[in-house]
Amino acid sequence: MNGGGNSDWPGMACPASVFDHKRILLGHGSGGKLTADLVRKLFLPAFKNEYLARLDDQAVFQLNGTRIAFTTDAFVVTPLFFPGGDIGKLAINGTVNDLAMSGARPLYIAAAFILEEGLELDELSRIVDSMRQAAFAAGVQLVTGDTKVVDRGKGDKIFITTTGLGILEGSATISADRARPGDKIILSGTIGDHGTAILSRRENLEFEGAIESDSAALHTLVAAMFEVTDQIHCLRDPTRGGLATTLNELAAASGVGLEVDERTIPVKESVKGACEILGLDPLYVANEGKLVALVAADAAEKVLAKMRGHPLGLEGCIIGEAVAQHPRMVLLKTEIGGKRMLDVLLREQLPRIC
Amino acid sequence: MNGGGNSDWPGMACPASVFDHKRILLGHGSGGKLTADLVRKLFLPAFKNEYLARLDDQAVFQLNGTRIAFTTDAFVVTPLFFPGGDIGKLAINGTVNDLAMSGARPLYIAAAFILEEGLELDELSRIVDSMRQAAFAAGVQLVTGDTKVVDRGKGDKIFITTTGLGILEGSATISADRARPGDKIILSGTIGDHGTAILSRRENLEFEGAIESDSAALHTLVAAMFEVTDQIHCLRDPTRGGLATTLNELAAASGVGLEVDERTIPVKESVKGACEILGLDPLYVANEGKLVALVAADAAEKVLAKMRGHPLGLEGCIIGEAVAQHPRMVLLKTEIGGKRMLDVLLREQLPRIC
Repeated sequence: MNGGGNSDWPGMACPASVFDHKRILLGHGSGGKLTADLVRKLFLPAFKNEYLARLDDQAVFQLNGTRIAFTTDAFVVTPLFFPGGDIGKLAINGTVNDLAMSGARPLYIAAAFILEEGLELDELSRIVDSMRQAAFAAGVQLVTGDTKVVDRGKGDKIFITTTGLGILEGSATISADRARPGDKIILSGTIGDHGTAILSRRENLEFEGAIESDSAALHTLVAAMFEVTDQIHCLRDPTRGGLATTLNELAAASGVGLEVDERTIPVKESVKGACEILGLDPLYVANEGKLVALVAADAAEKVLAKMRGHPLGLEGCIIGEAVAQHPRMVLLKTEIGGKRMLDVLLREQLPRIC
Repeated sequence: MNGGGNSDWPGMACPASVFDHKRILLGHGSGGKLTADLVRKLFLPAFKNEYLARLDDQAVFQLNGTRIAFTTDAFVVTPLFFPGGDIGKLAINGTVNDLAMSGARPLYIAAAFILEEGLELDELSRIVDSMRQAAFAAGVQLVTGDTKVVDRGKGDKIFITTTGLGILEGSATISADRARPGDKIILSGTIGDHGTAILSRRENLEFEGAIESDSAALHTLVAAMFEVTDQIHCLRDPTRGGLATTLNELAAASGVGLEVDERTIPVKESVKGACEILGLDPLYVANEGKLVALVAADAAEKVLAKMRGHPLGLEGCIIGEAVAQHPRMVLLKTEIGGKRMLDVLLREQLPRIC
């Protein structure tokens, strides 16, 4: 642990001097290296406990013998409305998904709104109605909330923090550190849709073939996967930082190497075209309705078959596998047949994407 | 229900046209009438369910026979550091208190940070360390979190949303609607400290006799109270909107009248003086370490005695009682012997106080 500590306290936040920067940069919110730096140097030492230390997108603990999943996310996306969704839909589905990625059945949502003075009530009303629809569709109840207002120029219309609580009914334990060499890497569908949709809207670009956010609640897809096996080791939704970042997190947490074949990773033609124009690599672009699973090799085909029978897994595919070689490193077999390391982005690729 | 609805959906957010204003005002965050308006017209119809409908500061539900309390709050206080605390301490204690006010034992906290580009890491580090200390002192674990960064000028250094989860081990049911005529109203100590401390700091005013925020975790005080009786009907921490607003909420939810005697309500001389200069009524000023309890008359004295044996209840006192007359209305016997209605504030008294 950096930053010391003493015997009276269970932890200690690091002094600012251990950081490479004196101030917060947009990149600290990217989900990449700078975000990891904050977590590792500041939050983990301060609040060290077994739950936080797992670095999963949710905490899982037992209460009177019941296993509960608990997760929180702040949503600061701009623009608020975009093709395929809005900040409200994103906030509900994002939190439902963070619960689902532990194998939990999502049940309850808490929502805290930070509104900027001057926000149009019409916009707020549309966002709340979108949350209502998403919550109903996902079968979760919004049971408690809070509203704060900040003065004009001290916020950006609306930020929403959703916190979710779910229950784990099976016995499976899913965590980023459970990938084993030989596991197959399954991706549930095309990548890059959400981030490209946001950026296109932000830049007022129009591409042939509408690009829409893939925002969707994935818990029923996960439930379907568990119907055919309990040999699912890791589950993640590749949001901020995209597929590349998620694969790196899993490789690092599990201490395995990952090898993926670029040719097997589905990217819509429209998204590919937009990424070329925008100078983005779809592997790093956020998704909001996709999952990556590390599954024992002998269960992979039947899991994939089950996924393809679900509306949110129609384009599911095996994109690679975990290996004992090059631990903590992700290698990409490129379209032209070479291999290259797929690293985590250092800085922000797309700020405020979710 | 305003705003319609159809048979497919469980609720419907109201159209913006039902509001008196077209845009969000600072007063919508005050905890007063405008906040209640948002909740009643927008959030309740959209998400209607038995938990939200109670209008308590936390939802309480059963999971496999275990009663769980769940609460969320966004903290947007400015300045970030003030006499007696900072935004980090406030965020932990505020959420601990919202759990405690249901009688729950606080266990786990989720924290979502919205950071503004340019925030000094030194400030962030101090805030996180303050959260660490508050969490340790309250015996809660911060088990999951999220960090987002917004561009400069789109936030205000740092907003923190904390969500808490606790467990109800006794059989008592505490809710705003359980006050009965005859119940005594117990206040745990002086009022107005927090809001006055914030405003003094904000306005760079110095008063004789330091005014400090009373931010504190009240769960051990509540536990002590339950050691002597289970006849505690309502518990609230009078934060935004102060004691007057909390009393009005309890009167409205329970359908009783409340009568309080101004002469029995403790206010520090320094706070009184500051309020006079600042043009504030301490009855409407936020507290962050006080509670109001509605307790069956025959248990009130022993509850009070127990409270006075606790460091956070030394100045506890009975300030009035619930009556069958003037339901939903709070009457104040003033210092000069008259009676006046103590209403909810229409607009913001002190913006961004928590």
